[in-house]
Amino acid sequence: MKIFNKVVIIGTGLIGGSLGLDLKKEHLVGRITGLSRKKRNAQLSKNIGAIDCAATSLEVAQDADLVILATPIEAIIDTGLKISKIIKPDCVVIDVGSSKENIVTKLSRVIPNFVGCHPLAGSEKRGVENFQAGIFNGSICIVTPVTKTNKNALKKVRLLWKSLGSQVIILSPGKHDRVLASTSHLPHGIAFALMNSIPDEFLNLSSGGLKDSTRIAASDPDLWSQIFLSNRSNLLAAITSFQTELEALKFALKNKDKKLLIKILKLAKEKRKKLG
Amino acid sequence: MKIFNKVVIIGTGLIGGSLGLDLKKEHLVGRITGLSRKKRNAQLSKNIGAIDCAATSLEVAQDADLVILATPIEAIIDTGLKISKIIKPDCVVIDVGSSKENIVTKLSRVIPNFVGCHPLAGSEKRGVENFQAGIFNGSICIVTPVTKTNKNALKKVRLLWKSLGSQVIILSPGKHDRVLASTSHLPHGIAFALMNSIPDEFLNLSSGGLKDSTRIAASDPDLWSQIFLSNRSNLLAAITSFQTELEALKFALKNKDKKLLIKILKLAKEKRKKLG
Repeated sequence: MKIFNKVVIIGTGLIGGSLGLDLKKEHLVGRITGLSRKKRNAQLSKNIGAIDCAATSLEVAQDADLVILATPIEAIIDTGLKISKIIKPDCVVIDVGSSKENIVTKLSRVIPNFVGCHPLAGSEKRGVENFQAGIFNGSICIVTPVTKTNKNALKKVRLLWKSLGSQVIILSPGKHDRVLASTSHLPHGIAFALMNSIPDEFLNLSSGGLKDSTRIAASDPDLWSQIFLSNRSNLLAAITSFQTELEALKFALKNKDKKLLIKILKLAKEKRKKLG
Repeated sequence: MKIFNKVVIIGTGLIGGSLGLDLKKEHLVGRITGLSRKKRNAQLSKNIGAIDCAATSLEVAQDADLVILATPIEAIIDTGLKISKIIKPDCVVIDVGSSKENIVTKLSRVIPNFVGCHPLAGSEKRGVENFQAGIFNGSICIVTPVTKTNKNALKKVRLLWKSLGSQVIILSPGKHDRVLASTSHLPHGIAFALMNSIPDEFLNLSSGGLKDSTRIAASDPDLWSQIFLSNRSNLLAAITSFQTELEALKFALKNKDKKLLIKILKLAKEKRKKLG
């Protein structure tokens, strides 16, 4: 069953491209046009079948039924504002950015059918060669409607994510940003800082623990700088909470307090179990 | 080719038990006796073929050609001191503890053929059900001889690890402890503190990044408290280095300094690449 007919994906990166692959595979939409600043990227996406047609001008959004804003987060608001002037009144617009408050506030004002989304999928890898069908299947997609969000648009967007196998969770944009600061942006910040604290000559002497815990430090510096800055105050608060916990660990170590150490580690292990 | 005839493994946990499995599989030793405080553990190890014979008394070390100290780190020195009084003069003794300076200093004094070892293998899991053949194959084993280490014993121990497929790296005990504080003990400490900083109600909203970066927070609290305390001053220094890097990230965030942020993240990504 087609949920939307003409779809435009703006930004054929890992999420945009993988979305294209899945939407087509599941026959959820009609024709997909993919936009990229670099013509080559959109062309490659077309070659692997993630989109039907490659373009570079936003004008193609004019007759779209669904526009997916999948650019780096810094460009989402500007791009949304630009297309708001040319899209059809009933065109549904979603974004897939990693922070939501700013984007949803600004774009809900100018796009009647805007629905903020954040699929918790993807990886530290970028680009066409890493497009992957099925990455949304079994993953969580947080959808962040606000009071003025059109109910019908919301319904169709929820159905879209569900049809891709995602578990849809509804959060306010503000709550989303506090949660993600803690569960995603903080771990990334820690992984970057952890890597930087390890002397170069020690790097060849590490085991699996360090590799796993810093996999996300291989993420794209430009993209993640944008994500960090887009959720700056929540991330700063999350870092401060983490610093308090690290100080507790240091305190126990300094005082050779094994009982307290075990208590701290036990609590962490219990919480880790809940992550699955 | 047998390197040692009669072997006693004291502590049939994940490392001791997996070592037993591999030593037998590769026919590197003769008969293996496994010791455990809990008779059931040693018996289970026997049942799965990790050892030939289960025991609970240290007396079995009397006629051993190789003793492997694989107890929790807190018990290694005491156990080593005890067996030093009963082993044959030419018996080789190794430990597999996660910190080396204290252990090597104390046991080299009383055991002529003591060689400190630290195989960088294993995982956050414990117990017989997680024994795994082949975990040393392709992994690094750090061996930490000191001036008084018997050359012949060192040669045989290196051969043993090589025969299991390990890459043997020679470090001084002090250097080992500084390296491991940074590449293993610090990441564990961070993972525990990170888990503790995440509000319970956010735990079901995390993606792969958090899961990977906190896998090691599921490690055993008692064992890891012991490891932390055994390498306390190096770990405290490593935490301080990490805190400095985290403050740099915070500084860039507070000042909305995207250029500096990208510089920090790029450096981390480059270092992460070297980890492989």
